[in-house]
Amino acid sequence: MTSPETPVGEIGERDLLRHLRSRIPAGPGVVVGVGDDAAVIETGALTLMTTDCVVEGVHFLREWTPPALLGRKILTMNLSDIAAMAGVPRYATVSLCLSTEVPLGFVDGLYDGLLERAAEAGVSLVGGNVSRTNGPIVVEVTLLGHGDRILRRAGAAPGDLAVVTGSLGAAAEGLRLLKHGARLDSEGTLEERGVWSESSAPAVLHCLRAQLDPRPPLAFGRSLAEQEVAHAAIDVSDGLSGDLLSVCEESDVSAWIDPKAVPVDAFAASLERARGGDGLSLALHGGEDYQLLVAIPPERLEALRDLAVIWELPLAVVGAFAGGPPGIFLKEGEGLTPLDAASHDHFRPPRRRDETSGA
Amino acid sequence: MTSPETPVGEIGERDLLRHLRSRIPAGPGVVVGVGDDAAVIETGALTLMTTDCVVEGVHFLREWTPPALLGRKILTMNLSDIAAMAGVPRYATVSLCLSTEVPLGFVDGLYDGLLERAAEAGVSLVGGNVSRTNGPIVVEVTLLGHGDRILRRAGAAPGDLAVVTGSLGAAAEGLRLLKHGARLDSEGTLEERGVWSESSAPAVLHCLRAQLDPRPPLAFGRSLAEQEVAHAAIDVSDGLSGDLLSVCEESDVSAWIDPKAVPVDAFAASLERARGGDGLSLALHGGEDYQLLVAIPPERLEALRDLAVIWELPLAVVGAFAGGPPGIFLKEGEGLTPLDAASHDHFRPPRRRDETSGA
Repeated sequence: MTSPETPVGEIGERDLLRHLRSRIPAGPGVVVGVGDDAAVIETGALTLMTTDCVVEGVHFLREWTPPALLGRKILTMNLSDIAAMAGVPRYATVSLCLSTEVPLGFVDGLYDGLLERAAEAGVSLVGGNVSRTNGPIVVEVTLLGHGDRILRRAGAAPGDLAVVTGSLGAAAEGLRLLKHGARLDSEGTLEERGVWSESSAPAVLHCLRAQLDPRPPLAFGRSLAEQEVAHAAIDVSDGLSGDLLSVCEESDVSAWIDPKAVPVDAFAASLERARGGDGLSLALHGGEDYQLLVAIPPERLEALRDLAVIWELPLAVVGAFAGGPPGIFLKEGEGLTPLDAASHDHFRPPRRRDETSGA
Repeated sequence: MTSPETPVGEIGERDLLRHLRSRIPAGPGVVVGVGDDAAVIETGALTLMTTDCVVEGVHFLREWTPPALLGRKILTMNLSDIAAMAGVPRYATVSLCLSTEVPLGFVDGLYDGLLERAAEAGVSLVGGNVSRTNGPIVVEVTLLGHGDRILRRAGAAPGDLAVVTGSLGAAAEGLRLLKHGARLDSEGTLEERGVWSESSAPAVLHCLRAQLDPRPPLAFGRSLAEQEVAHAAIDVSDGLSGDLLSVCEESDVSAWIDPKAVPVDAFAASLERARGGDGLSLALHGGEDYQLLVAIPPERLEALRDLAVIWELPLAVVGAFAGGPPGIFLKEGEGLTPLDAASHDHFRPPRRRDETSGA
């Protein structure tokens, strides 16, 4: 007899795999799914492949993240990568490293979210792996997508505009809120508001959801590729500054950002103002917003705006690309100040966002 | 300035990724390799996908495993899965979870082995991920292969013979040798023999290599599929007993093993005899030999032997499949004794092979 509290170590690998397999539905294009030496799937001429992982204690804490939202997010992180290349997501494998004390309820909750998000995105889970660890939980997802026209990081040209979808900074603000005791339950409802006031509840809820259950614009990159609107694209996962620098490095150009044009998330900004700061640093460096950053020639801006209307996506022209060695700058008046790409670096201890946000 | 001793935490994620990327050569079929949001690769109508990981402290210890051999082995584990499905390996992603103190030399050594094994097998590394952890090192590889005719675990029929390639037990004996101080260097040369005598050196070397640098019969499964020789196949990664049970479960049959027919590795057996035991338990339950277990109708045995001669592979008919609910048995005289599938279970602490080997 098992219950949600039963540690996976009491269940054993073989029975846990059998249980998880029983939860995974058959999917289109899946010839052989979970349970053989490898999955066998139908593919086209071009396949996109990406992988990402979350590590307990680095990317999430169990007490901060309902497992279903964690399952949704790890798949979303990969969906965002396929979307930024203009691909259509198709098949995923899931690999879990679990210590023996992890309760079955955590794994089932994780799969609740994975399966829900996969169904939303048209993705079939086709296999995976379960392994013991003596350390933190690791969840790794590898996602395959179908591609034909591809959007790359390389291709931005001097004179191109740098355009961002949606708003930035809410996910980083959500991380700060988690650190101050704010909590969502697995339904995405506000459970604890942390130290913020009653009137801030809508903003707290918005930012927690942005952090724990991001919703990238998954179809927009594909529209851009079909309409040949953009020269280059990247998903804003590490932070606008770091991801813009990546486009510059791949395209061998520089770029500048107008700080007044950065679409700071309004809810994040309101919470920051209540603390005496502003949200610009979160929007520049915070990461995990999973919006799209694109490089387009100015004459395609109207076409881009037309597409954004169809997908109901806000757009912000945050700057432009220029020649010269790869590097990024802040434009203040007529002057350009070199900007440090303060992206999240997994090898350095997490930055004290409390200290950097008021810049 | 970096040296092999430099901790990756001092290098930072961006520079480490740039360094690793610079080491990865372009490969056939790779349209976009490492460095974009996703890799873009050429695929055919059917693709095989498998993933596996190794966790420090569970699957390896740094002091036991030269990093280059670890890199070879994690790719080999995945190659074996694709081979057992009769696929041709093509593209791999590598995901690393590293604590900040891990020296660059470890990562470079790991990539030495990964790149060497990938080149041997015709595999292109197309992407990956590097993440910080506060826990043990985790190396995850996801491998895609091309498939047309597929060998599955399902399909074994009552009356089929159970046939194993190569010999079994050397990898498990190698694990025991590591526990007793025997060591290989990164060239695969015996560095320390542990507690074994001078005359045992060739056997010690053989078993350490089987554990640390396994060489599965990668082309044989594909030949079987092309010649339509086998009903079902699996790679012997968990151990003969557990993997045979998996074939039974997928095929809805039972099976028995004749213990006298099990191809116990001669070197492992000699080391076990010196300790007063025999190698049968290692061969039945040890795992990690990455040989192939196939189910074939008796009338195809000659065709199977002909193929084995071409590939210079020893074959052993270890038993047969029968009707009834999934389960496995040992045949002793005319009687059948239920056999517990004592496969390696990652959720239970590693079995004390010292205690189980003399059975």
